[in-house]
Amino acid sequence: MSDLLISGGTVIPVTKEGCLYDPGEVAIRGNEILYVGSPGGNLPQDWQPQRIIRAEGKLILPGFINSHTHAAMSLFRGYGDDLPLQEWLEKKIWPVEKRLTPDAVYWGTMLAIAEMLLAGVTTFADMYFFPEAIAQAVADTGIRASIALGLLGVQSDSAANLERAIRFCSEWDGGASGRITTMLGPHAPYTCPPKFLQRVLDAARKLGVGVHIHLAETEAEVGDIKKEYGLSPIAYFFAQEPGDLHILAAHCVHVDELDMNMLAAGKVHVSHNPGSNLKLASGIAPIPQLLAKGVPVALGTDGASSNNNLDLLEEARLAALIHKGYSGQPTVIPARKALEMATVNGAAALGLAGQCGSLKAGMKADIILMDREKPHMYPAINPLSALIYSARSSDVDMVIVDGQILVEGGQLCKLDLEKIMVTAEKHSKKLFTS
Amino acid sequence: MSDLLISGGTVIPVTKEGCLYDPGEVAIRGNEILYVGSPGGNLPQDWQPQRIIRAEGKLILPGFINSHTHAAMSLFRGYGDDLPLQEWLEKKIWPVEKRLTPDAVYWGTMLAIAEMLLAGVTTFADMYFFPEAIAQAVADTGIRASIALGLLGVQSDSAANLERAIRFCSEWDGGASGRITTMLGPHAPYTCPPKFLQRVLDAARKLGVGVHIHLAETEAEVGDIKKEYGLSPIAYFFAQEPGDLHILAAHCVHVDELDMNMLAAGKVHVSHNPGSNLKLASGIAPIPQLLAKGVPVALGTDGASSNNNLDLLEEARLAALIHKGYSGQPTVIPARKALEMATVNGAAALGLAGQCGSLKAGMKADIILMDREKPHMYPAINPLSALIYSARSSDVDMVIVDGQILVEGGQLCKLDLEKIMVTAEKHSKKLFTS
Repeated sequence: MSDLLISGGTVIPVTKEGCLYDPGEVAIRGNEILYVGSPGGNLPQDWQPQRIIRAEGKLILPGFINSHTHAAMSLFRGYGDDLPLQEWLEKKIWPVEKRLTPDAVYWGTMLAIAEMLLAGVTTFADMYFFPEAIAQAVADTGIRASIALGLLGVQSDSAANLERAIRFCSEWDGGASGRITTMLGPHAPYTCPPKFLQRVLDAARKLGVGVHIHLAETEAEVGDIKKEYGLSPIAYFFAQEPGDLHILAAHCVHVDELDMNMLAAGKVHVSHNPGSNLKLASGIAPIPQLLAKGVPVALGTDGASSNNNLDLLEEARLAALIHKGYSGQPTVIPARKALEMATVNGAAALGLAGQCGSLKAGMKADIILMDREKPHMYPAINPLSALIYSARSSDVDMVIVDGQILVEGGQLCKLDLEKIMVTAEKHSKKLFTS
Repeated sequence: MSDLLISGGTVIPVTKEGCLYDPGEVAIRGNEILYVGSPGGNLPQDWQPQRIIRAEGKLILPGFINSHTHAAMSLFRGYGDDLPLQEWLEKKIWPVEKRLTPDAVYWGTMLAIAEMLLAGVTTFADMYFFPEAIAQAVADTGIRASIALGLLGVQSDSAANLERAIRFCSEWDGGASGRITTMLGPHAPYTCPPKFLQRVLDAARKLGVGVHIHLAETEAEVGDIKKEYGLSPIAYFFAQEPGDLHILAAHCVHVDELDMNMLAAGKVHVSHNPGSNLKLASGIAPIPQLLAKGVPVALGTDGASSNNNLDLLEEARLAALIHKGYSGQPTVIPARKALEMATVNGAAALGLAGQCGSLKAGMKADIILMDREKPHMYPAINPLSALIYSARSSDVDMVIVDGQILVEGGQLCKLDLEKIMVTAEKHSKKLFTS
């Protein structure tokens, strides 16, 4: 790892102060940010960068954080489109998921990581099967991730799976030089009965890890949970007394006023997945209302088979656009808010607040450079607007995670992309024919 | 112009039959398609291509058609974001538009065309000022376009402008070797009183050209027109007796059952602009209902300053996603329908049905190749799904318009992109400081 100085270009630190530096400079020592500001700032006398990266014509910002995905579902991309969530899950996805192997999950995750890195995603939160395989892919690629084994409490092996999840957290939390953190992943209210959910929450408390769960994704879920327990999915979750555990709740599409108050009081981090919610016709989450209540909202792609890509910038644009159109208020979720949701709020959602998601001295060096020298980014009137409303993830030119350059000139520098694509496709084909 | 054979790859002709050819072949003689089908098909004995384009790993499809834009508004990209339509128009856009010059419109249009070609758009419908400058940019770049001078009936020079528009149609219709067609462009019900609108419709009838108009874009427009005329904007338009004129109506967001019936009966082509409608919070057009009534719906980006890009694939994805989420029906606007809206319906909307928008022998050679060898397009389970739900416009590898290769390897081959970007930016700056 060599010390880097990124110089020139427009630095968007995504900090509370809301400042930009144009031109700006970011200095990196090891895996940490040493300085962010105007050129010629206050750097230690004895510090010399091993490499100076000229960034004129580039936007320099924290890497995007994908706060909810099932990375290895890249293997099912384009399989079973245009179906409702329950039918898609029960008829298409669950049968083929039964055939998954650790090897398939490893290569599906590798494919997803390749896609995410090229699109400027430096960190993701995953909930899926064979977490050791996911962790190995994270270790092998250099990306940062929070990993949870998805836990279904309605199966005969649910107790054994919880034990597996606990063992995974004990073994892998802090792994890959600290790039891996872990959570417990009770799947959803409709797959986790009260006793099981309580056991998972207890285990999270003992391990000191967060909880990653799907909540209130569809209207059907709300109906089913109300019928079974007389409570909304959000109320059902809080009835299991999560206390002050760190909660990352994906979706929260169908939430009423009381649900939103509970989410705010419980300091729940909501992962908004607009692309997946639209594609599966789950609905449109009341994000402006959640934000108004102070609920911290991050962005996620969900799995590639309900999206169908892992492009977090696309999710940021969707969030910035759909809530304006749906509410009739063109001022909701302006560009700055969408960018915060894609970066600093994502870090907080993964329990990494203060560690990544912003560019600030002392934070991890998770940084991306995006090319502004493209016709769709011209003229350069407003860099934040250009980023959220005009840019494409293919404008990502350089990606640095934990101080390591993983993408340069829009190409992966440390991975064999062709091998990853071919091997993942081979595993995908095997799942559909075995 | 040299005859071309595109061979290998997955051909998506977008014809009624709904077939794919994988691998497939497209032969081009001059500016026309000679053959589309499986390799080794029925080509004339004496025909020899000057060049064979190997297309393994590519999708081969008709170019995208942007059925509503104001291309030169690229000069205002990122200016006045996050405002409602009327405020944005009246306080931000109209004052700066007063300073426009033919030169500024030429360079703004050049920038827009560069962006569109790189994103696979081979044809666009424009409504703006200084149409000769727009036409010159179309002539100089090789793209195809339908051009209309935007006509406001509430200004002192409205009669003179209509004369200018008539002259433009007479001079330029069929220009640039047939790549330019023209329409008359009465701006909207709220800027065109009945007598003026009738004069425009009469002129269109005499010229034999279509009419390009904004209809029912905002709730405010509906209220205002009802207050003034006691009619909805759609009813107001039909009250001027467009008869059997070819009508291209942008937006149609706020339309009721009767409006939709009138649009269907009047054979109006609707240009759906989801990105712009969302960003300006105009609302969500009832596209599934319009389609169910048999209204032909195409897609448009609107101007870059209310979008903020000219990426028609993004509009196709938005259309495929938002109507599922908004209706709660995951089956509405499946991938194939979204692709039709982006291609063959666009051609029909511009009065070019049977000439472009599909790949078929005898039609114009407006063809794009998109690269599937990208991680976000893997595995290759379903090419239509990959195109609409996973691809990015940056995957466009080759663009052919009227038999000419304008983009190759994702780069413009006949235009000086840097000069275009720099000159357009210079004109943009001048508009804001003069």
